[in-house]
Amino acid sequence: GAMLAAAGLQLRHALRAQWRASGPAFVGAAERSGPRALRARLAATATQEKNDQKQEQKQGKQAKPTVQEEALKITPRAEDYNQWYVDVIDRADLVDDAPVRGCKILRPAGFAIWENIQRLLDPKFKRLSVENAYFPLLIPVSFLAKEAAHVEGFATECAVVTHHRLRSVQVAGKNGETTSSVEVDPDSELADPYVVRPTSETVVWHMYGKWIKSYRDLPMRMNQWVNVMRWERRTKPFLRSAEFLWQEGHTAHATKEEAEAQAREILDVYVWLAQEQLGLPLFPGRKSDRERFAGADETYTIEALAQNGMAIQAGTSHFLGQNFAKAFDVQYQTEETGDFKYVWATSWGVSTRLIGATIMAHSDDTGLVLPPAVAAIQVVIVALFHKKAETQNAIFEAAKALRDTVEAQGIRVHVDDRVGLKPGLKYFEWERKGVPLRIELGARDLENGVGMAKRRTGGDKFQVSLSDAATEVPQALDSVRLALRERSEALKERLTTRIGSRAEFDARLEASEIGMMLVPWGGDSDDEEKLQEDTGVTLRCYPFEQDPLPEGQACPLTGKPARIWALFAKSY
Amino acid sequence: GAMLAAAGLQLRHALRAQWRASGPAFVGAAERSGPRALRARLAATATQEKNDQKQEQKQGKQAKPTVQEEALKITPRAEDYNQWYVDVIDRADLVDDAPVRGCKILRPAGFAIWENIQRLLDPKFKRLSVENAYFPLLIPVSFLAKEAAHVEGFATECAVVTHHRLRSVQVAGKNGETTSSVEVDPDSELADPYVVRPTSETVVWHMYGKWIKSYRDLPMRMNQWVNVMRWERRTKPFLRSAEFLWQEGHTAHATKEEAEAQAREILDVYVWLAQEQLGLPLFPGRKSDRERFAGADETYTIEALAQNGMAIQAGTSHFLGQNFAKAFDVQYQTEETGDFKYVWATSWGVSTRLIGATIMAHSDDTGLVLPPAVAAIQVVIVALFHKKAETQNAIFEAAKALRDTVEAQGIRVHVDDRVGLKPGLKYFEWERKGVPLRIELGARDLENGVGMAKRRTGGDKFQVSLSDAATEVPQALDSVRLALRERSEALKERLTTRIGSRAEFDARLEASEIGMMLVPWGGDSDDEEKLQEDTGVTLRCYPFEQDPLPEGQACPLTGKPARIWALFAKSY
Repeated sequence: GAMLAAAGLQLRHALRAQWRASGPAFVGAAERSGPRALRARLAATATQEKNDQKQEQKQGKQAKPTVQEEALKITPRAEDYNQWYVDVIDRADLVDDAPVRGCKILRPAGFAIWENIQRLLDPKFKRLSVENAYFPLLIPVSFLAKEAAHVEGFATECAVVTHHRLRSVQVAGKNGETTSSVEVDPDSELADPYVVRPTSETVVWHMYGKWIKSYRDLPMRMNQWVNVMRWERRTKPFLRSAEFLWQEGHTAHATKEEAEAQAREILDVYVWLAQEQLGLPLFPGRKSDRERFAGADETYTIEALAQNGMAIQAGTSHFLGQNFAKAFDVQYQTEETGDFKYVWATSWGVSTRLIGATIMAHSDDTGLVLPPAVAAIQVVIVALFHKKAETQNAIFEAAKALRDTVEAQGIRVHVDDRVGLKPGLKYFEWERKGVPLRIELGARDLENGVGMAKRRTGGDKFQVSLSDAATEVPQALDSVRLALRERSEALKERLTTRIGSRAEFDARLEASEIGMMLVPWGGDSDDEEKLQEDTGVTLRCYPFEQDPLPEGQACPLTGKPARIWALFAKSY
Repeated sequence: GAMLAAAGLQLRHALRAQWRASGPAFVGAAERSGPRALRARLAATATQEKNDQKQEQKQGKQAKPTVQEEALKITPRAEDYNQWYVDVIDRADLVDDAPVRGCKILRPAGFAIWENIQRLLDPKFKRLSVENAYFPLLIPVSFLAKEAAHVEGFATECAVVTHHRLRSVQVAGKNGETTSSVEVDPDSELADPYVVRPTSETVVWHMYGKWIKSYRDLPMRMNQWVNVMRWERRTKPFLRSAEFLWQEGHTAHATKEEAEAQAREILDVYVWLAQEQLGLPLFPGRKSDRERFAGADETYTIEALAQNGMAIQAGTSHFLGQNFAKAFDVQYQTEETGDFKYVWATSWGVSTRLIGATIMAHSDDTGLVLPPAVAAIQVVIVALFHKKAETQNAIFEAAKALRDTVEAQGIRVHVDDRVGLKPGLKYFEWERKGVPLRIELGARDLENGVGMAKRRTGGDKFQVSLSDAATEVPQALDSVRLALRERSEALKERLTTRIGSRAEFDARLEASEIGMMLVPWGGDSDDEEKLQEDTGVTLRCYPFEQDPLPEGQACPLTGKPARIWALFAKSY
């Protein structure tokens, strides 16, 4: 197995390299084709692919993987977790490298997940009277300096716009000929440079200063779905890239209480999304002083657990106090006395990072596993091959009828009616792409009025009645959601350790999967910093769920009296 | 009237100036409040506002406008069309100036229109098998030089990213103290600068070169909803700004015919949106060589007419031939022979410009008029005041019940139950904001089981049965859509002139509203250029609808034999 896997990997890399080489001069016609085409072609011609569906069913198990299948293989988690993550994403065609440092392109399969996240969240925001708006991409550099803490956090690695024009130039070619090119026109330098927004608090609060004058203007709640940039040095698909997509909400309130409640209310929405819809193993809580957002008085967070026991900050909601109101002089006239008070603020966001957390929580060595709520295709109906044209047509018709029935329930369905492709390869492809539920439809199934269903989360195949598909398919999909939830709860259970002593803590650090360490914490920011320097572990949050602290409990890491339960972990 | 109007305008400007002045040091507490609050306060205290709803109904007409209402007044079109446009947008709170040169902020009321355009268009694209994706914001400068014609069109006025870091500096203040500031870190200069995308053909085609290898990969159809930037010198809200929102579609095809059909198919979708949904006075057609997109073989366009007789290019769909395929070496292996051929391409887009065209087509001297399809609020229910608490509550309850009924029909409804605000002011506000249908609900109406409805497009008030609201309200809304369509057709009729001679052409140029001039055209690009230099008029399109040209017809503008009917106009 391992030898074959290694050979497969090598083959895959070789094929990819060939495929990526540009120009017909370097690659012969036979080799020159994309991986999709390549796979299909290899599959169609491979001689060891003779075992047909019938034989496969007889054996009652998947056929032994072929060399070609190995070429699409995913590095097992146990072998190399980080490579596994990259492989899963690559094999499901979610992203590709952009020709811009640290940026990824969201391919349709990847973007669809984000689109579905938007579809879930946006109505929730609107129900909370949040209105969508659009603030500018560029922010004057001087704005970033206005909020003292904020500048430290964000005015560093940014894309800076300094010029506004290109000019054509003639460049001497290799053979002495001249060709046209373009370059930055030095005469177009801007007096006041801009940064591409890393986040929009400064420009939002500049505008709120114009819009908010009276208690009647409050609360003001706006959100935008936009791209932002942070010039990250080390990137990882979905989890960290120079450009990414997110939503950022910004609210202003008359009272501290209302703003605090707003920040918590939004975090509840994030918990609903991440835990109920995406099924993530989730730890909602409050950030420590050191981990708080630059400019916030309080940061609430949802921390997700990856299968390798690392934490992922998957969304944050900030209570900003009056920091931005003061920095941008945003006051409102009160109803009661008519005098002026600074407003209270929140900001909050989730990004395409959520997709990374979802992949890390659910996917397996076969590939992507997507929660039904965000899967681009929730159900794939695989119409099986039949040599009799009449029967084949009946199968196709039944597949389309089933699709219509299921679609009418608001479910995203795809019919795979490709011919000349073995069922095993189809199954493998849809598994790799994370489709939550597969329904096979063959001649015998049709006779029995059923389809054979299989959940991406595992378990035996089971029958779905074609006549009751409108109720059975949604139920089956929901059972996938629940299976993911259960699996996540088990992961949380397995990878959360209550730390009673430094020795226990050190022992966890030696474990292959460190996980979340729940510590009766008594330290301060300096202690956190030292701990991170020594161990690489950070304080992820003070979980909202707090058991009572034992009387006289000392902090096992600092020796100081314990104040609060805190979660520590290594994080992405 | 004119005196009062002028006084009102002055007052409005003075109030706005006060309101915008920052800092309590310059503005006394009494004056310091937003226009919303200001209006409300003025309205509540003004003595000439004594005539109540009853009296208003007796008179059977709107009360004479007060000085306060004049302060919110909109410059009439006849007086100053361009100021009218700006006023309409301002009074409806659609946009505000961003602190970035040439950029506007889309406030919630403005963004909602775009959101509704997205909601209409996106499913249409998906039905045409177009998938959404996300390509990077930044484009390497060198990419722009790859397609010869494209570089001329786009590699000029761009936002250029040259650095990737800011640094903190200490700046000496006025009083000798030092304060922290930030500036561009000169050590962070990029070896290869980027531009903020003005359009994404180059990066899309770079990626298509990686993704397209075989006939099996075709057709490839992607779209993205994104922000783009072009460093425009002169800006106008919605119609021209440095940053704007749009969708850009990019497709690749095996054959020329398929690509050409795709470009036309998308234009049909744009016509559906602009003509049927937005009700614009529309001229779909083909661009001349001179007006074509930089890098296209053919550009299809929808040209909308403004009420002042100017044209607005409201959407384009390009057949790109093999230009980008060749520039980025995108070839596919054919099924038949296995050899390699360049693919055929299209690109197409509509932007927030559509909103500008919509305002210019429909709005009036009272303010914004929105087509129901894109109005944020389609129906406003104004619950009228009643001094008896019991009756007032019954009115509120009935308003909410009506809202629920109408909402259940998928209609966006708002209940205006503000107290202490005269009905006339409420009506005025919702008219200014372009709500297509208003339903008033008072005690007597309730007794009769009706609401009094009024279309934003004019006509008498009419009764809507509360029990049949589920059918009557959608019908009333659709009648607004039809009224806009009819009005647009009349505008087209009135402002389209068939030009038989140069004298007729010159006479049109002297008209206050030039409109569309249909010319039996025989000129070439040079003639177009000269015509534009002499008259400011450009060739908007060759309309798809072509009457037969009379035998031996000469072009009245060039004297050459006429080839085709062409539309000329001045344009935004």
